[in-house]
Amino acid sequence: MSGRGLDAIDRLVELLSKLPGIGKKSAGRLAYHILDADPGYSRMLAAELAALHSAIRRCSRCGSYTEVDPCSVCSDPGRDGSILCVVERPQDIRVIEESREFRGRFHVLGGLIAPLEGVGPDKLTIGRLLSRIRHEGVKEVILALNPTVEGDTTALYIGKVLRDTDAEVTRLASGLPVGGDLEYTDRLTLARSFRGRVRL
Amino acid sequence: MSGRGLDAIDRLVELLSKLPGIGKKSAGRLAYHILDADPGYSRMLAAELAALHSAIRRCSRCGSYTEVDPCSVCSDPGRDGSILCVVERPQDIRVIEESREFRGRFHVLGGLIAPLEGVGPDKLTIGRLLSRIRHEGVKEVILALNPTVEGDTTALYIGKVLRDTDAEVTRLASGLPVGGDLEYTDRLTLARSFRGRVRL
Repeated sequence: MSGRGLDAIDRLVELLSKLPGIGKKSAGRLAYHILDADPGYSRMLAAELAALHSAIRRCSRCGSYTEVDPCSVCSDPGRDGSILCVVERPQDIRVIEESREFRGRFHVLGGLIAPLEGVGPDKLTIGRLLSRIRHEGVKEVILALNPTVEGDTTALYIGKVLRDTDAEVTRLASGLPVGGDLEYTDRLTLARSFRGRVRL
Repeated sequence: MSGRGLDAIDRLVELLSKLPGIGKKSAGRLAYHILDADPGYSRMLAAELAALHSAIRRCSRCGSYTEVDPCSVCSDPGRDGSILCVVERPQDIRVIEESREFRGRFHVLGGLIAPLEGVGPDKLTIGRLLSRIRHEGVKEVILALNPTVEGDTTALYIGKVLRDTDAEVTRLASGLPVGGDLEYTDRLTLARSFRGRVRL
């Protein structure tokens, strides 16, 4: 808009369009929705956003986002400290927790090895992972990394580095998604599900 | 998440998932993106949201959102006050302004007639439109309403109400979109484009 009248809306649209998956059009739709909605909503959202970075820090043990350090998983005596699940990012922990399948603890790598993007093993928390394995009596390390080129590379690298420790290294199974359809499964996933086939 | 550790993130996800087109998964992605991003971003977004409803009001003349009353379009002496473009919502003005096709002024209806949803003509700013036509010397009223059942109903109703005024009432052309393909055009749009055909 040319006029002065819509400056505050323009600035909000500009900021919202920086979010992933939100283009200029969607940002406009969101801005007008917020404007049409109860002012209490934008005030609450503003308060949460303003407090976010001071409320949330990194857990000094696992590297996840947390309000208290160590985080609730690391300080929970009910969790099995002998099994460490290694994830790329804190948000991966959220998904795994929701599946209620895993009762061990976590370790956040902070990325995946990607030479083309200049991410070497030194950028990841592999040194801290090694020291945790040695000091926390870890018996199994489950690599819960994406089944992508970067995930595979990183898994192989960590597998090699951990060879000298007493911990067994495993990786999440890759194959057909539950409820999926053979016909619509891509070639690579199908190949993996053959290689990883299990006895009935 | 069960633990206390992610409460601030949970609250942000909850609030973000109330936005249109943003599900729980997308809200999570947005929240972690904001968390990973520079804290300056969330602070700026928070400030804009907190100030939004006090910065933006309705223009007392056209009903659009504005920081100053009357809005920049209504107070611009360069705009042609004899042509009024009637829109459903303030965000429609944004799209029309971007097309740079229209140099008149606007009038926001605040909705469309939808009997099933309990929206009658009395909920719209038709009375104010009539008084503007009489007091501002309006010669033409362009109805820029969506080509939907509600838009058609509202256009017909306004056309009838304005019959007693001196203003000519027109409506935006409906037909094939520019760059569109006949083969993929729906039956109703095609029918309209036939009825509205123009001489070369």
